[in-house]
Amino acid sequence: MEQNTDGAQPHDRQSSPDGGSAEPIRTNFMSDNVGTVSPEILAALAQANVGEAPAHGADSWTRRLEARVAEVFEAEARVFPVATGTAANALALSALSPPWGAILCDESAHINRRECGAPEFFTGGAKLWPIPSADGRMEAGLLASAVADLSAGGARLSRPAALSLTQATEWGTVYTLEHLVELTALAHEAGLSVHMDGARFGNALAHLGCSPADMTWRAGVDVLSLGATKSGALSADLIVMFDLSLAEDMERRIKRSGHLWAKQRFLSAQLLAWLENDLWLRNARHANEMAGRLARGLARHPAATLPFDTQGNEVFAVLPELLVEGLEAAGFVFLRRTAPPGVTGTLVRFVTGHDTRPQDVDALLEALAGTTE
Amino acid sequence: MEQNTDGAQPHDRQSSPDGGSAEPIRTNFMSDNVGTVSPEILAALAQANVGEAPAHGADSWTRRLEARVAEVFEAEARVFPVATGTAANALALSALSPPWGAILCDESAHINRRECGAPEFFTGGAKLWPIPSADGRMEAGLLASAVADLSAGGARLSRPAALSLTQATEWGTVYTLEHLVELTALAHEAGLSVHMDGARFGNALAHLGCSPADMTWRAGVDVLSLGATKSGALSADLIVMFDLSLAEDMERRIKRSGHLWAKQRFLSAQLLAWLENDLWLRNARHANEMAGRLARGLARHPAATLPFDTQGNEVFAVLPELLVEGLEAAGFVFLRRTAPPGVTGTLVRFVTGHDTRPQDVDALLEALAGTTE
Amino acid sequence: MEQNTDGAQPHDRQSSPDGGSAEPIRTNFMSDNVGTVSPEILAALAQANVGEAPAHGADSWTRRLEARVAEVFEAEARVFPVATGTAANALALSALSPPWGAILCDESAHINRRECGAPEFFTGGAKLWPIPSADGRMEAGLLASAVADLSAGGARLSRPAALSLTQATEWGTVYTLEHLVELTALAHEAGLSVHMDGARFGNALAHLGCSPADMTWRAGVDVLSLGATKSGALSADLIVMFDLSLAEDMERRIKRSGHLWAKQRFLSAQLLAWLENDLWLRNARHANEMAGRLARGLARHPAATLPFDTQGNEVFAVLPELLVEGLEAAGFVFLRRTAPPGVTGTLVRFVTGHDTRPQDVDALLEALAGTTE
Amino acid sequence: MEQNTDGAQPHDRQSSPDGGSAEPIRTNFMSDNVGTVSPEILAALAQANVGEAPAHGADSWTRRLEARVAEVFEAEARVFPVATGTAANALALSALSPPWGAILCDESAHINRRECGAPEFFTGGAKLWPIPSADGRMEAGLLASAVADLSAGGARLSRPAALSLTQATEWGTVYTLEHLVELTALAHEAGLSVHMDGARFGNALAHLGCSPADMTWRAGVDVLSLGATKSGALSADLIVMFDLSLAEDMERRIKRSGHLWAKQRFLSAQLLAWLENDLWLRNARHANEMAGRLARGLARHPAATLPFDTQGNEVFAVLPELLVEGLEAAGFVFLRRTAPPGVTGTLVRFVTGHDTRPQDVDALLEALAGTTE
Repeated sequence: MEQNTDGAQPHDRQSSPDGGSAEPIRTNFMSDNVGTVSPEILAALAQANVGEAPAHGADSWTRRLEARVAEVFEAEARVFPVATGTAANALALSALSPPWGAILCDESAHINRRECGAPEFFTGGAKLWPIPSADGRMEAGLLASAVADLSAGGARLSRPAALSLTQATEWGTVYTLEHLVELTALAHEAGLSVHMDGARFGNALAHLGCSPADMTWRAGVDVLSLGATKSGALSADLIVMFDLSLAEDMERRIKRSGHLWAKQRFLSAQLLAWLENDLWLRNARHANEMAGRLARGLARHPAATLPFDTQGNEVFAVLPELLVEGLEAAGFVFLRRTAPPGVTGTLVRFVTGHDTRPQDVDALLEALAGTTE
Repeated sequence: MEQNTDGAQPHDRQSSPDGGSAEPIRTNFMSDNVGTVSPEILAALAQANVGEAPAHGADSWTRRLEARVAEVFEAEARVFPVATGTAANALALSALSPPWGAILCDESAHINRRECGAPEFFTGGAKLWPIPSADGRMEAGLLASAVADLSAGGARLSRPAALSLTQATEWGTVYTLEHLVELTALAHEAGLSVHMDGARFGNALAHLGCSPADMTWRAGVDVLSLGATKSGALSADLIVMFDLSLAEDMERRIKRSGHLWAKQRFLSAQLLAWLENDLWLRNARHANEMAGRLARGLARHPAATLPFDTQGNEVFAVLPELLVEGLEAAGFVFLRRTAPPGVTGTLVRFVTGHDTRPQDVDALLEALAGTTE
Repeated sequence: MEQNTDGAQPHDRQSSPDGGSAEPIRTNFMSDNVGTVSPEILAALAQANVGEAPAHGADSWTRRLEARVAEVFEAEARVFPVATGTAANALALSALSPPWGAILCDESAHINRRECGAPEFFTGGAKLWPIPSADGRMEAGLLASAVADLSAGGARLSRPAALSLTQATEWGTVYTLEHLVELTALAHEAGLSVHMDGARFGNALAHLGCSPADMTWRAGVDVLSLGATKSGALSADLIVMFDLSLAEDMERRIKRSGHLWAKQRFLSAQLLAWLENDLWLRNARHANEMAGRLARGLARHPAATLPFDTQGNEVFAVLPELLVEGLEAAGFVFLRRTAPPGVTGTLVRFVTGHDTRPQDVDALLEALAGTTE
Repeated sequence: MEQNTDGAQPHDRQSSPDGGSAEPIRTNFMSDNVGTVSPEILAALAQANVGEAPAHGADSWTRRLEARVAEVFEAEARVFPVATGTAANALALSALSPPWGAILCDESAHINRRECGAPEFFTGGAKLWPIPSADGRMEAGLLASAVADLSAGGARLSRPAALSLTQATEWGTVYTLEHLVELTALAHEAGLSVHMDGARFGNALAHLGCSPADMTWRAGVDVLSLGATKSGALSADLIVMFDLSLAEDMERRIKRSGHLWAKQRFLSAQLLAWLENDLWLRNARHANEMAGRLARGLARHPAATLPFDTQGNEVFAVLPELLVEGLEAAGFVFLRRTAPPGVTGTLVRFVTGHDTRPQDVDALLEALAGTTE
């Protein structure tokens, strides 16, 4: 069972309570979107604030962003910056599925469970077609039989139109390149386009250590939602279309959904700074390291179980309820999720960010160690 | 795996091939919508074709239909006749869920799997939230935990808005009244409205032998889609709203979806004739009897297994693939469905109708007996 | 100002009040949808009610309908029968315009003013872009400048996607073939597809005396909504696609909007009977003749003015309010419309049908003559 | 005729080309969204970038913003910050009109002509019902007759649901308070809610010199779209709901349209800084002054005509085409609009911003003076 405890912490932590020079311990592990903006990105906003610039994306920052993406991904691509991950996902999917299409995805996918119907809204009513899995990574056999079922129904059933894969997954795991290729090949063979929800793309990339191209178009991905907001941006995600034919009409899709910024230079400048000098990879690697540190610490705790591999920046643990409450009493903030059937204890999620520090992780582990069941 | 074999039969059977007085054997068990219109209903159309009548539902047939429904269901209700079951379901659901709502239903539900996104279209993007079951009848525990999950997510998740129950279910089973009450009580407590997909309502009613009121508003149903098309009508289903407050704006919903008939008398006249003199119950009982005859015959076959109870007019059987092909070769038409995991053989569905005759059923059983594996 | 007086008449007229053999005078001139079904069409329903037929359009009546349309229109075309004109129009338009498209039409068009947002619903939000006219017939110059305005706006404005022409128009006038060609040529040059709302197509055809091909594809029409309901059918209109490429996905559009009839043979059989033996043309010619008789009679009345040419089966007249009230007091039913600015009197509309008789028209004229201002 | 010349200028002007200390002349009068962010707002972003903050609007900046709005508008109100004016307008309207509603607005309204169908998208298909006017300010008589027409049509026509007024209008004019009250009273009497598109609200306020309360809820406005992006913000507009009952479900509307920022503090902080210390009013007043300077200069030019009063920060002029081309050749950037029928010359629009300087205006006027016809 999920609990919406975002508002549960007593106050924003804007200043050091002890008045000293040390920053206070960060106790909020709710998500990677509770943290700060990387200083390089704020600086880029100030640098972009000089004189006039054509509105609505006709500016030079957007042009440079497109060039930088081509360089990073070793491919020509059309890019569309938007302010949120939900917008990036839903807009991308709307280009892949007609209103009478089915979008196949893992049952746990954010687009299926946690976006309040945004994909249905933007696509004009397409069906999310969920496929169950053990750890957020879809099995090829189940994908194949779902596609076969839909296709056999003819024109009275939704047309299987798109496959959406989440990398890293909602359970903190990461698809291997082989697994990605297996799924996308199956999809393409059946005429589906492939979307990747990369809200934590950088974390997955850092885990696999491969190139951005390897994990996207070389692996059969047609459109990527590349998330920067969770990894240091103020508010910026990027739709990257490797299949250029899908980009037609995207400007009107974006305009009519209110996602076209008049002063788009300030959206593109964020993403440009994030992709320059490998800031995005440094931020992702750091968050992953902090998650690893936390996972190792939890694994040492006798009462904790880690149901999933920690491969990105999300750590899941099953803990006795009393320990969970003890952590909360100590001021730590994190998400409770539905425990798998048959599991005793409480399933919790900790997310680390680009600005999580070792002492923050250690403070949580110490608080846990100090809590008696 | 489902196969779209609707078009597979060689030709329509409009006349007796032997030129004799006997009607030919009916070999099409694909669905209860391949059959004929009850003569009483055709006659009612002719009787309604006299002189002028106000358009768009202001006619006297519609008024009499509303009165007859009140009588049959022992309750005041608003009724909205439409031509198809998909329209009845999707329009009804659009009155129960906002675009950001979730509609909880059995995973097998027609609205979830077989309406090409109609509920999503009419609701403006609501999410169907499927709950797995063994035989099409939802377990209360799983409903409760789905509602709890959604509610815990707060305003960033779809709002649990409606429960939709299919009676009889897609697997030919029928909820008991106690089961219905258990589910609707749970739904109402959590603030959800309750819809019943009654495409085969008459068949379920005939099975339970209870009153229409018992199986609807007394059991907690707010809105019913009452299907006549599958049971003798030309093309007519009826939205019955027991919760009168939901009826506001229904006329505009119907108009803007193209479902308002100018000459509505011809829609209402069908339903009136169907509900008069218990034609609807006679049709349903007969179809159930034919299904029972078929089920008993199949159960006697050594190679056949019936995975579900036959409680309405749908019979499911697992047969060796060679026998299935033998039936098809003999000219019989029916649906293949995905076999449950671990089951050896082919899952097929036979549907009987108000105009299926004993000799039609027996001919199928004989053909099966004569087919060697 | 329009008044919704559909329900104003005291009762349906189902039987002769005097018990004699003569049918009573028909006093309802509200619309051509208050009348009866042609006997040939009812007979066709009965003839189609023989044995099984594959569902959802795989039946032989639908195949014969397609063949008959090809013959009548001298062209290959894809046909999609639906039960209402609103559905035919909105479904057709949804194939011509994306959600971010603009559909240019006369300001008076039914799709713009009287369908409760159906085109917006089916297209997923396309904009109707109204163009003013004097009598329902669009001027080419105004169409050209509307297209130019929209095109100049670039990707932040709706894309001009379709032109919709109503033939006969909402003011009872009929485009000449030359006028149609002028408008469709302009549209095609700008990349727009052309739709014709032919709710009263037969009436326009009867007026022009040309061939169906001349008034459609030879005149640049890509998709036609062909209305039978207003001209003798029970409930049947037909989408005729001359541009075959637009037909892709139409089955799923129809299914997900609830407009796919399970027993489609009963929809196709109506249209087939209507198109056979020129029933459709006979019905239209008769309605036009009755409208002409009425128009000539009104023109002779010293207090009446006819603001538009009566070219189809709709007669508009400006009458002193006292005369209008006198007609209503005498039991006649018709529509009041907004009078043009500067006009003294009340604008009313009388519509004749395939079953309007000379004595019905004469009775109205006599009642008018007998009413003192 | 509108021309999309946003991309026409040769390059962004990011630095002084002469390397000197003087900033170059700003030649871009295309819109008030081509300019810079007020330094106070950029500073506020940096100040907000300290430590953790709860996501999705549960932060303290958003709370303070709500308090500040209550103070500025002298009323309790629910506020919803979003990144664009299109989102603010379309989301606000979606709370006022059902999918089968009509939204009455001036024919020139941005929501009607220049948002690529965003209101249709967010409302699920509501109809924009345009009312013509001479200068963007709707006449009460025409509003009354449009409402009457729609209401008379009954349930087969769109329900008149909302009135949307643009203040300042698209033609640079400003409604008086009396005019606003006349229109909103009429709307409320007929059961419509009232929306104000305040993309240039500050400019109108500065012109009237009244209080924000006077121009909104005291004048009958239920919901305001308050635009900051055009007046110094990076990307931030605010939905202000004075009718608190309309705010229900707004969070889900915002989430499912992708407009809920995870790091909402950075949206609220912009608006807070804009509303603090009267920055918003200073910015608006300055832009108005620059527009006035430009209008006075143009009025002195013998070949120029100003068709509308310059009451905000938009100046419209009719100029001989050769002069227009001369200005363009001199590097000035502005919008061409469709000239009113019968007018000789080219209609152009110049927009001034918070960062337009007197020397920028004077340079344009000088260029014009130096251009020979």
